[in-house]
Amino acid sequence: MSGRTTLLDRYRGTIEGGLRRALAGPSPLDAILRYHVGLADAEPPALGKLLRPSLVLFTAEELGATVESALPAAVALELVHGFSLIHDDIQDRDEIRRGRPAVWARWGIAEAINAGDMMHAIAVRSALDAAPDVARALLEATIEMIEGQSLDLSFEKRFVTADEYLDMVDRKTGALFRCALRSGGRIAGVDEEVQERLEDLGRTVGRAFQIQDDLLGIWGDGDILGKPTASDVRRRKKSFPVVLAHAKAGDEDRSKLERIYEDAEKSIEAVDVDWVVGLLDRLDVEGQGRETVRDYLLRACGIVDSLPLSADARGELKDLIEVLARRDK
Amino acid sequence: MSGRTTLLDRYRGTIEGGLRRALAGPSPLDAILRYHVGLADAEPPALGKLLRPSLVLFTAEELGATVESALPAAVALELVHGFSLIHDDIQDRDEIRRGRPAVWARWGIAEAINAGDMMHAIAVRSALDAAPDVARALLEATIEMIEGQSLDLSFEKRFVTADEYLDMVDRKTGALFRCALRSGGRIAGVDEEVQERLEDLGRTVGRAFQIQDDLLGIWGDGDILGKPTASDVRRRKKSFPVVLAHAKAGDEDRSKLERIYEDAEKSIEAVDVDWVVGLLDRLDVEGQGRETVRDYLLRACGIVDSLPLSADARGELKDLIEVLARRDK
Repeated sequence: MSGRTTLLDRYRGTIEGGLRRALAGPSPLDAILRYHVGLADAEPPALGKLLRPSLVLFTAEELGATVESALPAAVALELVHGFSLIHDDIQDRDEIRRGRPAVWARWGIAEAINAGDMMHAIAVRSALDAAPDVARALLEATIEMIEGQSLDLSFEKRFVTADEYLDMVDRKTGALFRCALRSGGRIAGVDEEVQERLEDLGRTVGRAFQIQDDLLGIWGDGDILGKPTASDVRRRKKSFPVVLAHAKAGDEDRSKLERIYEDAEKSIEAVDVDWVVGLLDRLDVEGQGRETVRDYLLRACGIVDSLPLSADARGELKDLIEVLARRDK
Repeated sequence: MSGRTTLLDRYRGTIEGGLRRALAGPSPLDAILRYHVGLADAEPPALGKLLRPSLVLFTAEELGATVESALPAAVALELVHGFSLIHDDIQDRDEIRRGRPAVWARWGIAEAINAGDMMHAIAVRSALDAAPDVARALLEATIEMIEGQSLDLSFEKRFVTADEYLDMVDRKTGALFRCALRSGGRIAGVDEEVQERLEDLGRTVGRAFQIQDDLLGIWGDGDILGKPTASDVRRRKKSFPVVLAHAKAGDEDRSKLERIYEDAEKSIEAVDVDWVVGLLDRLDVEGQGRETVRDYLLRACGIVDSLPLSADARGELKDLIEVLARRDK
């Protein structure tokens, strides 16, 4: 990963402490939750990027609240994200999560369902520790995220337009980003109009983040990502590049693409994977995808400039946004 | 079902209204949730017993609160119970729920996970509508219920003592009953000591309820239950009768029982089902199970007598407890 990551480094220790306290329970299920977030009892910490909680803490602090007052909300956001990943991996049958066995792959589907349910409940309890309206906002975001997840699933059965795809992303990915940024502002007590700009920033960053994810799912370096190249094509995922290709392709290519993506259950032939990747190259979908990410990035930086933040804080936030959109994992 | 069911009838319409409002969303996922609780868009209502929400409303009203003030908490309890059933059916691969296809059997595992997650979030939101401390109590109960679910799952791998079994039941089943009764008391503003007696009642009723369930899982009438006789033996479930039999059996029978129950994944031979049912009969496990239910029933009635309720209300509550413990489905 290139560029500075100051913002994320700044809150890492604090968030780790908050997660440890939230997941300190004694049951075997609590131990599974600690494993999932990268705080397994007998291993060195292996936390994720902690993006959402860092955005809560940064926004809250830079807009005038204490980090301490925002920590329960930050932890809650990370735990909702975490629970969604536990259930996501079951749904997608993804056996690897951040280079380690997914919860379901290690403890079975039934216990992984329990683990996700438990993390969900602990997340909301943490949000309640902040304030009832933080919990309510988190629940609204969670409901929207799940609706996005369900929409995404329904895309397995049909091709969608770019607009439909973006609507799904605004829910599945955007809901938690919006909630993170707005919660930070709410805790700092900024007025409604600033909170709305923070939400707009969350939506925009969410789109850039998800489309970058989709690009990595096809052109990412398999060694860095810990999964095979073109993995989203192998899984016939209707991610952004495929949605673009479907819209841009001529009739013959489109029919062939539809035929190949017809049955998401069946395993795909290697020759079909190559053909799809070839089609994406012919249509320069990667270039267009990168341009779309860049557009959202610029838009996000514009919103940052409209926020009542110090020049330093704006710089830090823009650095983070840029790093996210240029990441290779 | 014999006996009066006044208490349950009394709140049925109110709870149905509350559920309809809580699940009124427009998404396909909302429609799945309505189906699950028995309020599918194109079918006549087919609600369950509504036991937990009825207990919230009854306790609240009889102890001095309005039904209206307790309705969000009541709906929340029913929705937590409902979400746990959606996920439970996936875990147990139960294809039928109350005589209709389970959510996962109709919409697939991935969407059923989403549906449960969604109902969970909507449940807590409903509890927040009541009060933050109602939501907190519900989350604590939900966490305990999930721990019980996880414990129950771990019993697939070993035989347990009756005490371990009851500890699991106090969580898996008891947590929501305790929460229902205590929430009713809390909303009515009764003092801590009465709230504790209400919890004690919840624990006791939970045990009677679960053990009765376990008896029906082996000796229940398949036609009434909508599943085959001895279905829990066929699934090698370590339910109360089997726990009792394991404790009471001689060495030879115990070894054979352990061998038959060894691998819960494998399907069981018909001859083994017959042998297990024969063993349970020889050890008079059904009789002892019924006696245990009756003991908890008496204990529950004793607690009811200690509550600051009118004579009529005590009668109604005892009638309900009796009906539950004598039910055939």
